[in-house]
Amino acid sequence: MRMYDIIMKKRNGGRLSTEEISFFISGYTREEIPDYQVSALMMAIYFQGLDEEETLALTMAMAHSGEMLDLSAIEGVKVDKHSTGGVGDKTSLALAPMAAACGIKVAKMSGRGLGHTGGTIDKLESFKGFSTAIPQEQFIRQVNGIGISIMGQTADLAPADKKLYALRDVTATVDSMSLIASSIMSKKLAAGADAIVLDVKTGSGAFMKTEEEALALAREMVKIGNGAGRHTIAVVSDMDQPLGRAVGNALEVKEAIDTLRGQGPADFVAPCLTLGSQMLIAGGKAQDTRQARDMLQQTIETGAALKKLAQFVQAQGGDPAAVYDPSLLPRAAYTEPIPAPADGYIRQIRCDEIGMCSLMLGGGRETKDSEIDLSVGLVLTAKVGDYVKNGEPLAYMHFNDPVKAAAARERFYQAYSFGADAGEKAPVLIHRILQES
Amino acid sequence: MRMYDIIMKKRNGGRLSTEEISFFISGYTREEIPDYQVSALMMAIYFQGLDEEETLALTMAMAHSGEMLDLSAIEGVKVDKHSTGGVGDKTSLALAPMAAACGIKVAKMSGRGLGHTGGTIDKLESFKGFSTAIPQEQFIRQVNGIGISIMGQTADLAPADKKLYALRDVTATVDSMSLIASSIMSKKLAAGADAIVLDVKTGSGAFMKTEEEALALAREMVKIGNGAGRHTIAVVSDMDQPLGRAVGNALEVKEAIDTLRGQGPADFVAPCLTLGSQMLIAGGKAQDTRQARDMLQQTIETGAALKKLAQFVQAQGGDPAAVYDPSLLPRAAYTEPIPAPADGYIRQIRCDEIGMCSLMLGGGRETKDSEIDLSVGLVLTAKVGDYVKNGEPLAYMHFNDPVKAAAARERFYQAYSFGADAGEKAPVLIHRILQES
Repeated sequence: MRMYDIIMKKRNGGRLSTEEISFFISGYTREEIPDYQVSALMMAIYFQGLDEEETLALTMAMAHSGEMLDLSAIEGVKVDKHSTGGVGDKTSLALAPMAAACGIKVAKMSGRGLGHTGGTIDKLESFKGFSTAIPQEQFIRQVNGIGISIMGQTADLAPADKKLYALRDVTATVDSMSLIASSIMSKKLAAGADAIVLDVKTGSGAFMKTEEEALALAREMVKIGNGAGRHTIAVVSDMDQPLGRAVGNALEVKEAIDTLRGQGPADFVAPCLTLGSQMLIAGGKAQDTRQARDMLQQTIETGAALKKLAQFVQAQGGDPAAVYDPSLLPRAAYTEPIPAPADGYIRQIRCDEIGMCSLMLGGGRETKDSEIDLSVGLVLTAKVGDYVKNGEPLAYMHFNDPVKAAAARERFYQAYSFGADAGEKAPVLIHRILQES
Repeated sequence: MRMYDIIMKKRNGGRLSTEEISFFISGYTREEIPDYQVSALMMAIYFQGLDEEETLALTMAMAHSGEMLDLSAIEGVKVDKHSTGGVGDKTSLALAPMAAACGIKVAKMSGRGLGHTGGTIDKLESFKGFSTAIPQEQFIRQVNGIGISIMGQTADLAPADKKLYALRDVTATVDSMSLIASSIMSKKLAAGADAIVLDVKTGSGAFMKTEEEALALAREMVKIGNGAGRHTIAVVSDMDQPLGRAVGNALEVKEAIDTLRGQGPADFVAPCLTLGSQMLIAGGKAQDTRQARDMLQQTIETGAALKKLAQFVQAQGGDPAAVYDPSLLPRAAYTEPIPAPADGYIRQIRCDEIGMCSLMLGGGRETKDSEIDLSVGLVLTAKVGDYVKNGEPLAYMHFNDPVKAAAARERFYQAYSFGADAGEKAPVLIHRILQES
């Protein structure tokens, strides 16, 4: 078998066999196939696509390129939840304790933030001492014991995907639906959960700008997951403006805690309940969404979810006191309102600009090696469709460096569009659920 | 300017500017842009193509990536002739002396053979002592003095093309019309001739299998040449079966000498006259093809072309005695007829199989570093459309190693198809001439 023939076959619109895909992935992982042949193949795939079987074969080959986590020592159905990413997306922080409090085994691997999007691991490190660099044995023991653990991705998790993604990133071959789906799913399959609930974001702040694209990606991932024998469900949800109110690591943790105390913003609580319901059903703890939503609400009302969060933080070396007293979380030296520039309805809040604004304050990473300031960020006081008066705050900015704040403030305004009315259609919260038919 | 943006632009069907093309070619030549980005761009170009302006810009950038030969010290119009390659193509060997004998300044760079196709330099080395590794000063002095010189390609001739071609060769991005055209023309432009006569081969033995493809390539190259200010003419000619009778280095030299003695096979003499006429007209030595053909025929009848060949061989260190006595050329130890397997008409003689047969005898290179045996090869005694009787020779095989000969003989038969009649249409000698309108 020769890589040249594989490139030629795909270039000419042919179907790659499972053997050909395995050959190329294992050869690439072992560095026997050079980058320049792989990038040519990626570009050919960009133009010719991969069918369902090829996509599944690619995903399986990448998943098996490194260690496949064995979670069989954990009793019950292990459920993973994954978001395609966005701004202000602290869903895992609230949802994981809620689901665990309902008896779901939440065994999750997370990543760090890069660019204008945040990462769950960074956010969790707002709890002093918290670590996701834990050994597998602890991960398994902890899920068995308290029903929840979140660990960082191990170096040997789908290494082929890591290499391939880095290459696609510099060769303009990222935006192929099959390649995106296989990249995400290879890591999910290797991470070992029995059931996978996918949160596919759509809108201006998501990689998938339109609902059609998001649905197409969701469909590809559900097919892969089920094809690989994992119970997979996807929810397509809104990311046309930042999720909830808080953007920034410790600020988002505080909003998650508020949510577990019954004081979360409605537009954040809603997707938590939708995604959580699917987790409970997939994990066999609820019969239908109505029962599931009731159970999840109960975990808030009884304080069980908040308690679960405290247990979880403590189990991974963090200080649980902050769960009950969020003022112990990292706090910025300054907080200032950002006033509305005129009277009007907010028509748009662009996620990427808000994310960049938080990054400029020090809350995000420009490169993989950037240090981040956990305390800074924004708390929005009005969202799309709201009417604001000139001078009223649009948001509060939390910062430590006034020079950075001045620059970030300019960027902040670029995120907003205003209008004389609320717009032709009110902002829609999309929650479309997709399972194998 | 970033290579990433250039890849993305072309991937999305955009037009690359001259600056973008120069940026990528100069960066790649200096090894500042990695292979993996260039191969992705090449695949994007395969799918999206290059327009006329982009193709010219790419050709110019590659030509200027190394030394541009300055032939201004040579008086008169310098004419180069280039063939896209085939099997048994010894046209330059006969044509260059004929044209030079008519007063044309033939300043030509040639390459070596690889795989099943031969190279002019290898063939010329059949003359004992002949060298194409000559200094530029000698090249220029010789063209000024006797009107003809053929030198090997210098290392610094269009180095970007050399790098790019090697990359395309292993990433299945060779067969893009614009990339093929720019690769050939970049070397022709750098080689410095004022006029360029291109022999674009078509048929089973050519890279361009159909006449339409060959015409399209011819059109691209003529546009590039004229766009770069060189008088460029293309001839589309037949390579559906080996050209002439001889295949193999010294055997082809002998056939070229026979031709200059007025004893060349008609199907080889014809393209020599067609291409030669274009050279004479381009060089301002003839008004029309009729006059040009008469002049070329004269060089044979008077012996002027044969004398020119002897001068040329001697000027480059070779023994001119072999020009008058071809038995002094390298000769194989054995010559054996290969009999026809049955009565019938020859329907097809596949060039690649005949070329491989010669290679198997030792007459070609499997890799760039292979040593070749100049004496071996084949002399066909019948061509497509001819009737042969069972046992009559199809060809004579010249060889030194009986073991290799046995293997080559099997291969030889794979080249042939026979039929009960001459076929629906007789083999056509295509000679279509293309110039800027």
